[in-house]
Amino acid sequence: MNKINLAQKFALFAEHWQPKIAGELNDSYIKLAKLQGEFVWHKHSNEDELFLVIKGTLRMKLRDAKAGGNASAVTENEVVIGPGEFLIVPRGMEHLPIADEEVHVVLLEPKSTLNTGDVHSERTIEHLEWV
Amino acid sequence: MNKINLAQKFALFAEHWQPKIAGELNDSYIKLAKLQGEFVWHKHSNEDELFLVIKGTLRMKLRDAKAGGNASAVTENEVVIGPGEFLIVPRGMEHLPIADEEVHVVLLEPKSTLNTGDVHSERTIEHLEWV
Repeated sequence: MNKINLAQKFALFAEHWQPKIAGELNDSYIKLAKLQGEFVWHKHSNEDELFLVIKGTLRMKLRDAKAGGNASAVTENEVVIGPGEFLIVPRGMEHLPIADEEVHVVLLEPKSTLNTGDVHSERTIEHLEWV
Repeated sequence: MNKINLAQKFALFAEHWQPKIAGELNDSYIKLAKLQGEFVWHKHSNEDELFLVIKGTLRMKLRDAKAGGNASAVTENEVVIGPGEFLIVPRGMEHLPIADEEVHVVLLEPKSTLNTGDVHSERTIEHLEWV
Protein backbone atom coordinates (compact mmCIF):
# COMPACT_ATOMS: atom_id res chain seq x y z
CA MET A 1 0.00 0.00 0.00
CA ASN A 2 1.73 3.10 -1.21
CA LYS A 3 0.98 6.77 -1.32
CA ILE A 4 0.64 8.39 -4.71
CA ASN A 5 2.51 11.58 -5.54
CA LEU A 6 0.50 13.46 -8.15
CA ALA A 7 3.42 15.40 -9.65
CA GLN A 8 5.49 12.23 -10.01
CA LYS A 9 2.62 10.44 -11.73
CA PHE A 10 1.86 13.33 -14.08
CA ALA A 11 5.54 13.31 -15.12
CA LEU A 12 5.18 9.74 -16.41
CA PHE A 13 2.98 10.47 -19.42
CA ALA A 14 2.44 13.19 -22.00
CA GLU A 15 -0.65 12.21 -23.99
CA HIS A 16 -3.66 14.48 -23.92
CA TRP A 17 -7.22 13.26 -23.30
CA GLN A 18 -6.06 9.81 -22.25
CA PRO A 19 -6.84 9.37 -18.56
CA LYS A 20 -4.62 7.01 -16.57
CA ILE A 21 -5.71 5.18 -13.46
CA ALA A 22 -3.80 6.23 -10.34
CA GLY A 23 -5.90 4.52 -7.70
CA GLU A 24 -9.08 2.60 -7.03
CA LEU A 25 -11.41 2.67 -4.11
CA ASN A 26 -14.87 1.26 -3.62
CA ASP A 27 -16.44 1.29 -7.11
CA SER A 28 -14.41 4.20 -8.42
CA TYR A 29 -11.15 5.03 -10.08
CA ILE A 30 -8.92 8.01 -9.40
CA LYS A 31 -7.62 9.02 -12.81
CA LEU A 32 -5.05 11.55 -13.97
CA ALA A 33 -5.39 13.30 -17.29
CA LYS A 34 -3.58 15.95 -19.28
CA LEU A 35 -5.88 18.07 -21.37
CA GLN A 36 -5.13 20.46 -24.17
CA GLY A 37 -7.50 21.89 -26.73
CA GLU A 38 -11.19 21.13 -26.96
CA PHE A 39 -12.76 17.75 -26.25
CA VAL A 40 -16.21 16.62 -27.47
CA TRP A 41 -19.64 17.36 -26.05
CA HIS A 42 -20.81 14.33 -24.10
CA LYS A 43 -22.64 13.23 -21.01
CA HIS A 44 -22.61 10.29 -18.63
CA SER A 45 -26.15 9.09 -18.12
CA ASN A 46 -25.47 7.21 -14.89
CA GLU A 47 -22.35 8.69 -13.40
CA ASP A 48 -21.45 11.92 -11.66
CA GLU A 49 -17.90 12.98 -12.48
CA LEU A 50 -15.44 15.07 -10.48
CA PHE A 51 -12.74 17.27 -12.03
CA LEU A 52 -10.06 18.55 -9.65
CA VAL A 53 -7.62 20.88 -11.37
CA ILE A 54 -3.98 20.54 -10.34
CA LYS A 55 -2.37 22.77 -12.95
CA GLY A 56 -3.70 25.20 -15.54
CA THR A 57 -7.19 26.51 -16.12
CA LEU A 58 -10.01 24.30 -17.32
CA ARG A 59 -13.05 25.78 -19.00
CA MET A 60 -16.07 23.53 -18.70
CA LYS A 61 -18.98 24.31 -20.96
CA LEU A 62 -22.24 22.91 -19.66
CA ARG A 63 -25.50 22.36 -21.45
CA ASP A 64 -28.59 21.30 -19.64
CA ALA A 65 -31.33 20.03 -21.89
CA LYS A 66 -33.34 18.44 -19.10
CA ALA A 67 -35.89 21.22 -19.12
CA GLY A 68 -37.31 20.27 -22.48
CA GLY A 69 -36.63 18.69 -25.79
CA ASN A 70 -36.54 21.77 -27.97
CA ALA A 71 -33.39 23.69 -28.60
CA SER A 72 -34.73 26.91 -27.21
CA ALA A 73 -34.99 25.33 -23.77
CA VAL A 74 -31.30 24.50 -23.65
CA THR A 75 -29.27 26.65 -21.29
CA GLU A 76 -25.53 26.80 -21.77
CA ASN A 77 -22.95 28.22 -19.48
CA GLU A 78 -19.29 27.92 -18.61
CA VAL A 79 -17.41 27.30 -15.38
CA VAL A 80 -13.73 28.22 -15.16
CA ILE A 81 -11.78 25.91 -12.84
CA GLY A 82 -8.27 26.70 -11.64
CA PRO A 83 -5.70 24.88 -9.51
CA GLY A 84 -7.10 23.80 -6.16
CA GLU A 85 -10.66 23.90 -7.44
CA PHE A 86 -13.03 21.11 -8.33
CA LEU A 87 -16.29 20.76 -10.19
CA ILE A 88 -18.75 17.90 -10.00
CA VAL A 89 -20.65 17.38 -13.24
CA PRO A 90 -23.87 15.56 -12.38
CA ARG A 91 -25.07 12.61 -14.41
CA GLY A 92 -27.03 13.56 -17.48
CA MET A 93 -25.42 16.99 -17.84
CA GLU A 94 -23.78 17.56 -21.21
CA HIS A 95 -20.31 18.99 -20.85
CA LEU A 96 -17.40 20.05 -23.01
CA PRO A 97 -13.97 20.44 -21.37
CA ILE A 98 -11.70 23.01 -23.01
CA ALA A 99 -8.06 23.60 -22.11
CA ASP A 100 -6.65 26.65 -23.87
CA GLU A 101 -3.28 25.70 -22.41
CA GLU A 102 -2.32 22.35 -20.93
CA VAL A 103 -4.31 21.36 -17.86
CA HIS A 104 -3.54 18.61 -15.35
CA VAL A 105 -6.65 17.22 -13.77
CA VAL A 106 -7.59 14.52 -11.28
CA LEU A 107 -10.80 12.72 -12.18
CA LEU A 108 -12.96 10.72 -9.86
CA GLU A 109 -15.64 8.57 -11.39
CA PRO A 110 -17.17 5.10 -11.24
CA LYS A 111 -15.15 2.34 -12.87
CA SER A 112 -17.87 2.02 -15.49
CA THR A 113 -17.31 5.56 -16.82
CA LEU A 114 -16.12 6.02 -20.41
CA ASN A 115 -14.22 9.24 -21.14
CA THR A 116 -16.64 10.23 -23.88
CA GLY A 117 -19.72 9.12 -21.97
CA ASP A 118 -22.62 8.19 -24.20
CA VAL A 119 -20.78 9.43 -27.31
CA HIS A 120 -18.50 6.93 -29.00
CA SER A 121 -15.84 8.61 -31.10
CA GLU A 122 -12.24 8.23 -32.13
CA ARG A 123 -11.39 9.80 -28.78
CA THR A 124 -13.10 7.08 -26.78
CA ILE A 125 -10.62 5.13 -24.64
CA GLU A 126 -11.95 1.62 -24.14
CA HIS A 127 -9.13 0.22 -22.04
CA LEU A 128 -7.61 2.42 -19.41
CA GLU A 129 -4.02 1.98 -18.34
CA TRP A 130 -2.57 2.49 -14.89
CA VAL A 131 0.14 5.06 -14.41
CA MET B 1 -23.76 23.95 -10.12
CA ASN B 2 -20.71 25.65 -8.77
CA LYS B 3 -17.05 24.91 -8.60
CA ILE B 4 -15.50 24.48 -5.17
CA ASN B 5 -12.34 26.33 -4.20
CA LEU B 6 -10.54 24.26 -1.59
CA ALA B 7 -8.65 27.14 0.05
CA GLN B 8 -11.84 29.20 0.37
CA LYS B 9 -13.66 26.27 1.96
CA PHE B 10 -10.83 25.47 4.36
CA ALA B 11 -10.91 29.10 5.50
CA LEU B 12 -14.50 28.69 6.69
CA PHE B 13 -13.84 26.42 9.65
CA ALA B 14 -11.20 25.82 12.28
CA GLU B 15 -12.20 22.67 14.17
CA HIS B 16 -9.93 19.67 14.07
CA TRP B 17 -11.11 16.12 13.33
CA GLN B 18 -14.53 17.30 12.20
CA PRO B 19 -14.87 16.62 8.49
CA LYS B 20 -17.19 18.88 6.50
CA ILE B 21 -18.92 17.88 3.31
CA ALA B 22 -17.80 19.87 0.27
CA GLY B 23 -19.41 17.82 -2.47
CA GLU B 24 -21.30 14.66 -3.27
CA LEU B 25 -21.15 12.41 -6.26
CA ASN B 26 -22.50 8.97 -6.88
CA ASP B 27 -22.57 7.29 -3.43
CA SER B 28 -19.71 9.30 -1.99
CA TYR B 29 -18.94 12.52 -0.22
CA ILE B 30 -15.96 14.78 -0.75
CA LYS B 31 -15.05 16.00 2.71
CA LEU B 32 -12.58 18.54 4.00
CA ALA B 33 -10.92 18.12 7.36
CA LYS B 34 -8.33 19.89 9.47
CA LEU B 35 -6.26 17.54 11.56
CA GLN B 36 -3.95 18.23 14.46
CA GLY B 37 -2.57 15.79 16.98
CA GLU B 38 -3.33 12.11 17.09
CA PHE B 39 -6.69 10.53 16.25
CA VAL B 40 -7.82 7.05 17.35
CA TRP B 41 -7.05 3.66 15.85
CA HIS B 42 -10.00 2.52 13.79
CA LYS B 43 -11.01 0.77 10.61
CA HIS B 44 -13.87 0.86 8.15
CA SER B 45 -15.05 -2.67 7.51
CA ASN B 46 -16.83 -1.92 4.26
CA GLU B 47 -15.33 1.26 2.90
CA ASP B 48 -12.06 2.22 1.27
CA GLU B 49 -11.03 5.74 2.21
CA LEU B 50 -8.91 8.26 0.34
CA PHE B 51 -6.76 10.94 2.02
CA LEU B 52 -5.43 13.69 -0.25
CA VAL B 53 -3.16 16.08 1.60
CA ILE B 54 -3.49 19.75 0.66
CA LYS B 55 -1.34 21.30 3.38
CA GLY B 56 1.03 19.92 5.99
CA THR B 57 2.32 16.41 6.52
CA LEU B 58 0.10 13.55 7.59
CA ARG B 59 1.55 10.47 9.22
CA MET B 60 -0.68 7.46 8.78
CA LYS B 61 0.05 4.49 10.97
CA LEU B 62 -1.30 1.26 9.56
CA ARG B 63 -1.88 -2.06 11.26
CA ASP B 64 -2.86 -5.10 9.31
CA ALA B 65 -4.21 -7.89 11.46
CA LYS B 66 -5.70 -9.84 8.58
CA ALA B 67 -2.90 -12.36 8.66
CA GLY B 68 -3.98 -13.86 11.94
CA GLY B 69 -5.62 -13.22 15.24
CA ASN B 70 -2.60 -13.18 17.50
CA ALA B 71 -0.68 -10.05 18.24
CA SER B 72 2.57 -11.40 16.90
CA ALA B 73 1.06 -11.60 13.40
CA VAL B 74 0.23 -7.90 13.34
CA THR B 75 2.43 -5.80 11.11
CA GLU B 76 2.54 -2.06 11.70
CA ASN B 77 4.01 0.58 9.50
CA GLU B 78 3.73 4.26 8.73
CA VAL B 79 3.19 6.22 5.53
CA VAL B 80 4.10 9.91 5.43
CA ILE B 81 1.85 11.91 3.10
CA GLY B 82 2.65 15.46 2.02
CA PRO B 83 0.88 18.08 -0.10
CA GLY B 84 -0.10 16.76 -3.51
CA GLU B 85 -0.02 13.17 -2.33
CA PHE B 86 -2.82 10.76 -1.57
CA LEU B 87 -3.21 7.45 0.19
CA ILE B 88 -6.05 4.99 -0.14
CA VAL B 89 -6.65 2.99 3.02
CA PRO B 90 -8.43 -0.21 2.03
CA ARG B 91 -11.43 -1.49 3.94
CA GLY B 92 -10.54 -3.52 6.99
CA MET B 93 -7.14 -1.91 7.48
CA GLU B 94 -6.69 -0.35 10.91
CA HIS B 95 -5.26 3.13 10.68
CA LEU B 96 -4.27 6.00 12.95
CA PRO B 97 -3.85 9.46 11.41
CA ILE B 98 -1.33 11.70 13.18
CA ALA B 99 -0.74 15.37 12.41
CA ASP B 100 2.25 16.75 14.28
CA GLU B 101 1.34 20.15 12.89
CA GLU B 102 -1.97 21.14 11.32
CA VAL B 103 -2.88 19.23 8.19
CA HIS B 104 -5.56 20.05 5.62
CA VAL B 105 -6.90 16.98 3.92
CA VAL B 106 -9.52 16.09 1.33
CA LEU B 107 -11.33 12.85 2.10
CA LEU B 108 -13.26 10.75 -0.33
CA GLU B 109 -15.43 8.02 1.07
CA PRO B 110 -18.89 6.47 0.76
CA LYS B 111 -21.69 8.42 2.38
CA SER B 112 -22.07 5.64 4.92
CA THR B 113 -18.58 6.18 6.35
CA LEU B 114 -18.22 7.28 9.97
CA ASN B 115 -15.05 9.18 10.83
CA THR B 116 -14.12 6.68 13.55
CA GLY B 117 -15.16 3.65 11.53
CA ASP B 118 -16.14 0.68 13.67
CA VAL B 119 -15.01 2.44 16.84
CA HIS B 120 -17.56 4.68 18.51
CA SER B 121 -15.95 7.28 20.74
CA GLU B 122 -16.38 10.86 21.85
CA ARG B 123 -14.70 11.79 18.58
CA THR B 124 -17.36 10.14 16.45
CA ILE B 125 -19.25 12.65 14.32
CA GLU B 126 -22.74 11.30 13.69
CA HIS B 127 -24.11 14.19 11.64
CA LEU B 128 -21.84 15.80 9.11
CA GLU B 129 -22.26 19.42 8.14
CA TRP B 130 -21.66 20.96 4.75
CA VAL B 131 -19.09 23.69 4.42
